[in-house]
Amino acid sequence: MSAPYAIILAGGSGTRFWPASRRACPKQLLPLIAGSEASLLEHTLARIAPLVPTEQLLIATSTRLREQTRARLPGLPESAVLAEPVARNTAPCIGWATATIARRAPEAVVMVLPSDHYVADTRLFRETVERACALAATGSIVTIGLWPTRPETGYGYIELGPPLDQGRGDTFLCQKFVEKPDPKTALEFVTNGRHLWNSGMFFFRADVLLQRIGQHLPSLAAALAEFDRAAAAGEEEARLAELFPELPNVSIDVGIMERESQLLVIKGDFGWNDLGSFASLWELGPRDGAGNVAAPNHVLIDAERNLILSRTDPTRTVALLGVSDLCVIDTPDALLIVPRERAQDVREVLRQLEAAGRDDLS
Amino acid sequence: MSAPYAIILAGGSGTRFWPASRRACPKQLLPLIAGSEASLLEHTLARIAPLVPTEQLLIATSTRLREQTRARLPGLPESAVLAEPVARNTAPCIGWATATIARRAPEAVVMVLPSDHYVADTRLFRETVERACALAATGSIVTIGLWPTRPETGYGYIELGPPLDQGRGDTFLCQKFVEKPDPKTALEFVTNGRHLWNSGMFFFRADVLLQRIGQHLPSLAAALAEFDRAAAAGEEEARLAELFPELPNVSIDVGIMERESQLLVIKGDFGWNDLGSFASLWELGPRDGAGNVAAPNHVLIDAERNLILSRTDPTRTVALLGVSDLCVIDTPDALLIVPRERAQDVREVLRQLEAAGRDDLS
Repeated sequence: MSAPYAIILAGGSGTRFWPASRRACPKQLLPLIAGSEASLLEHTLARIAPLVPTEQLLIATSTRLREQTRARLPGLPESAVLAEPVARNTAPCIGWATATIARRAPEAVVMVLPSDHYVADTRLFRETVERACALAATGSIVTIGLWPTRPETGYGYIELGPPLDQGRGDTFLCQKFVEKPDPKTALEFVTNGRHLWNSGMFFFRADVLLQRIGQHLPSLAAALAEFDRAAAAGEEEARLAELFPELPNVSIDVGIMERESQLLVIKGDFGWNDLGSFASLWELGPRDGAGNVAAPNHVLIDAERNLILSRTDPTRTVALLGVSDLCVIDTPDALLIVPRERAQDVREVLRQLEAAGRDDLS
Repeated sequence: MSAPYAIILAGGSGTRFWPASRRACPKQLLPLIAGSEASLLEHTLARIAPLVPTEQLLIATSTRLREQTRARLPGLPESAVLAEPVARNTAPCIGWATATIARRAPEAVVMVLPSDHYVADTRLFRETVERACALAATGSIVTIGLWPTRPETGYGYIELGPPLDQGRGDTFLCQKFVEKPDPKTALEFVTNGRHLWNSGMFFFRADVLLQRIGQHLPSLAAALAEFDRAAAAGEEEARLAELFPELPNVSIDVGIMERESQLLVIKGDFGWNDLGSFASLWELGPRDGAGNVAAPNHVLIDAERNLILSRTDPTRTVALLGVSDLCVIDTPDALLIVPRERAQDVREVLRQLEAAGRDDLS
């Protein structure tokens, strides 16, 4: 098998990390891993570096984020960054990136990875990815499902079907995709051994995905063919700007994967976190004896299980006295204080700021 | 009666307002009154301006704060600021300031006022002060006791004795001073009609106080006589530096007032607050419909009864989402978050910073 290609989805706006994230600097471009100055996107690339040659990397983002994204990745050729003129969910984006790969290598194995997740065990992650690629090389479409470790209601789940004969007992047919469950259902999912978290990672041969797009999303397939012609004529960017707004606004999950009768699922158990909110950053720590995640220059008295994210100035000091379970996000022009259990509601603040015309802060 | 003199006590370090207050900028020099850029000290002076001629004002502070204090009061002569070389509680300070006045006018009526309190009704305050001065002119020592409006355990109280015959029914002999009570006792005090809050305001003739100092604090009296001699010889500052550290470290309450059998108390009811902590600032408002005290540029969602004090930059935005009863004090180099009910413990943060050698923040 030739080395796989990778499509890294880096177009997210990450409103749940405001004020650390902004429209011009969303989550994937932030250094959210404790002890590292690298962005989540850079961590994602480092994680697959031994598997994917640099020239087979594609970063899918928006024209709005193109320059900031390139600036973070000086080692990549400019052509590695694919910029959608408008956001149209993941099916058009992955379809276009796959078509781009197929022009060079129609039978290439392609992995699609989010750019803004956390993985604890990189070695185990790579092993799982390599097995997914090997299965994809045979013509299957493959995803990785993650062992649920808590009754999470914020994720989609994958229900497992029968195990694959030639697997190690951890590869299954996908029975179906399940939308974000209610708390009672989530509790059932986390205990019944038949449900995994939907990771958003997919593996396929380029020609196989394009065939499925032709089958399930013919209007997208037509546009991709048009992009191919335009690319050959050196006019791709203009055609993209013209056609992209018309493309179906649909996710790859809904548009393709849920309709795939033979979708394979590999169980992943490499310590995954989608970094969905500031609460995730607290979970990943490192925590002090009182459960606080905070740089040592801060002062914490009778304060437990708080997160302090302060990037304004290393000499700036945050003092917490008698408060618990708060996220304190301190930036030069905006400060957010929110209980960890409300961290997923941060976009409410952004909505209010936008309603007040405070575009400088969004 | 000639116009009275005033001694304004402005030497406090105000550690309960960190990080808004610092060693070099304590509470009395801060603009803590909503809607005003003037410091508490300036508000205090404005309050008595119609009663006390400028040339009869004395501001008692420390040598450490002398320049900042003068800078706040450009209209006063330099000699109006008396600077103690070391802090020795209020008896030496008031004794020295009174001796200074007595050199000019031995029988002058003197009022002693804290510099860092809040008064809602200035007209009523002035009326009460004028009556206290009139009583002091007859040779009495007078204090103002404040109607308690809640079972406060953080203040000292004054127990009332029999009413003064010639009073309007609101002037009494002081029965005794009572230290900060426990909650049960405080509840009794607020309901029995016989206890007032000790305001720390005193009124006396200069010669009367000096006579009492001679009687109760002879070592202080000796030092004051020595300061008089040194002043006449133009050597007062040197003698102060030499003798002040040896003076008794005692408050005027304990050293003089508690021993005064004929101390008079006038009931004050002019809307007084000692601004003892950030909780006081919240109490004084102005509060929005959800009980928050915050400038309108901030964002408050599901947030109730919080105080935001942010002086770093008027364009800096604080967003509170789902938090209640917090004080958020935002300064350029330090941010404090503390529940209102723990606001009086802020000095703990300072202690910890000092222990860590962070003198830059104290």
